Amino acid sequence: MAEPHFERVCLIGLGLIGSSLARALKRGGLVGEIVGTARTPETRAKALELGFIDRVEGDAAAAARDADLIILAAPVGANAALAEAIGPALKPGAIVTDVGSVKQAVIDAVAPHLPEGVHLVPAHPVAGTEESGPEAGFAELFEGRWCILTPPAGTDADAVARIKAMWRAVGSNVDEMEPRHHDMVLAITSHLPHLIAYTIVGTATELENTLQQEVIKFAAGGFRDFTRIAASDPVMWRDIFLANKDAVLEMLGRFDEDLTALQRAIRYGDGPALEDWFTRTRAVRRSIIKAGQA
Amino acid sequence: MAEPHFERVCLIGLGLIGSSLARALKRGGLVGEIVGTARTPETRAKALELGFIDRVEGDAAAAARDADLIILAAPVGANAALAEAIGPALKPGAIVTDVGSVKQAVIDAVAPHLPEGVHLVPAHPVAGTEESGPEAGFAELFEGRWCILTPPAGTDADAVARIKAMWRAVGSNVDEMEPRHHDMVLAITSHLPHLIAYTIVGTATELENTLQQEVIKFAAGGFRDFTRIAASDPVMWRDIFLANKDAVLEMLGRFDEDLTALQRAIRYGDGPALEDWFTRTRAVRRSIIKAGQA
Repeated sequence: MAEPHFERVCLIGLGLIGSSLARALKRGGLVGEIVGTARTPETRAKALELGFIDRVEGDAAAAARDADLIILAAPVGANAALAEAIGPALKPGAIVTDVGSVKQAVIDAVAPHLPEGVHLVPAHPVAGTEESGPEAGFAELFEGRWCILTPPAGTDADAVARIKAMWRAVGSNVDEMEPRHHDMVLAITSHLPHLIAYTIVGTATELENTLQQEVIKFAAGGFRDFTRIAASDPVMWRDIFLANKDAVLEMLGRFDEDLTALQRAIRYGDGPALEDWFTRTRAVRRSIIKAGQA
Repeated sequence: MAEPHFERVCLIGLGLIGSSLARALKRGGLVGEIVGTARTPETRAKALELGFIDRVEGDAAAAARDADLIILAAPVGANAALAEAIGPALKPGAIVTDVGSVKQAVIDAVAPHLPEGVHLVPAHPVAGTEESGPEAGFAELFEGRWCILTPPAGTDADAVARIKAMWRAVGSNVDEMEPRHHDMVLAITSHLPHLIAYTIVGTATELENTLQQEVIKFAAGGFRDFTRIAASDPVMWRDIFLANKDAVLEMLGRFDEDLTALQRAIRYGDGPALEDWFTRTRAVRRSIIKAGQA
């Protein structure tokens, strides 16, 4: 069994995911000390006050110095600059991991800046809420949820095993995947649904005023679920779409063809085509319930 | 105060909504007798067995004869034929209402077949689950939910007041709206979200096999919410899209323009445009929470 405990953890990014992981690590006795850092002084102060980190640094390199484990938990677009900043401060044998929803882009951004002997083990906990910020985190967030590791070929096996052990210790089920494949799976299960929810809720904001107020009032019919998704962190999602452009555009293209076909069926009154499509989608729900993911 | 009690109710369509309303009426002591009918013998037998109707008829006209209130609760596409069938059997002073998600089309389909002295009061309880069928109903479904009445100009005021009283008695908040306006509001709050959820879940069913299994496995990232919506009754939704074609196509056109704009922002890496859009949509969620609709 690999050791899930890390003596000194550096946490860069103190939002929903980062603060939840810090809370879970502390609750599980999985960490000696957590040194945290974040972009704004307000977030750093709030994190210290909430107590899920032991110490704060204003500078990522200072926070990462002497750390056994460095967790990148800022929006994925910040990773290249963060890796460049911390690279020279990392000690040999340190493990760098992350929590980003896109994996190939993270490897491309981070790996070139890491010195020899430092191990990169990218990870994606498939968990979250529409809340964001250090107050939004909670230690139970990862329980029963998947965490997908995407170590590049040749990654140190012990480092991978330790990150796996850590995620299992906070309650997650761990899987391993090729990074580009991960990005394609997540493009359809997560990124495209978010993009569509953001779109339709945005479309509603362009409606004339009275209509818009009624949309709020009668949101229960389906729209409400979309508004919950579309309340997710704007900067985090901006970065995800930019970092997973190819997979998102590919899946968006498929979606768009299908939507056009259904639009055409509505326009020309093709009831059988609609009913057939709506019947097939029911089966997917049943599969998800069967897989225990509902 | 108008009288919410009806001595003899005829319920045509015994699915989720119809059976929930029957249960709520019985629980509230709001009805003398409920005579039910449905298209299939299996549904009729199941409804009798479950006990939310007192008597069953195989024929809509027979069920409607001598009824004080006739509730159309079949898929909206069936309404024209049903109204034609029951019209000659209706007694003077009877009230015909419905529970459909589309309102102008219901008026167009039903009104021409009603004899003089019979009142049409169209209604739409904005409530539901992804389940369907007589077993899926429950008396609490309408509690705290909106029910929108769309009586055509000139509808008997007492009839409208009685239907209002009935919906209030089963726990709903009642609002009144012009039928075409209702159809536009619902096109964006309900019909378009359903169409989009059906589309993306269908897109996922076209994926190559291994990818599709992973989509099921990692559905938690947003896709899961869509599969719940896309598990709604196929025939009911086929009819809604066909009956509300103009409003759905109008809203779909706006959605499509917005999606294309976001797609372009992703393709050309326009981060500020994405962030700006995603920030605006957050405000909608806050409004819904404020309106007590979350």
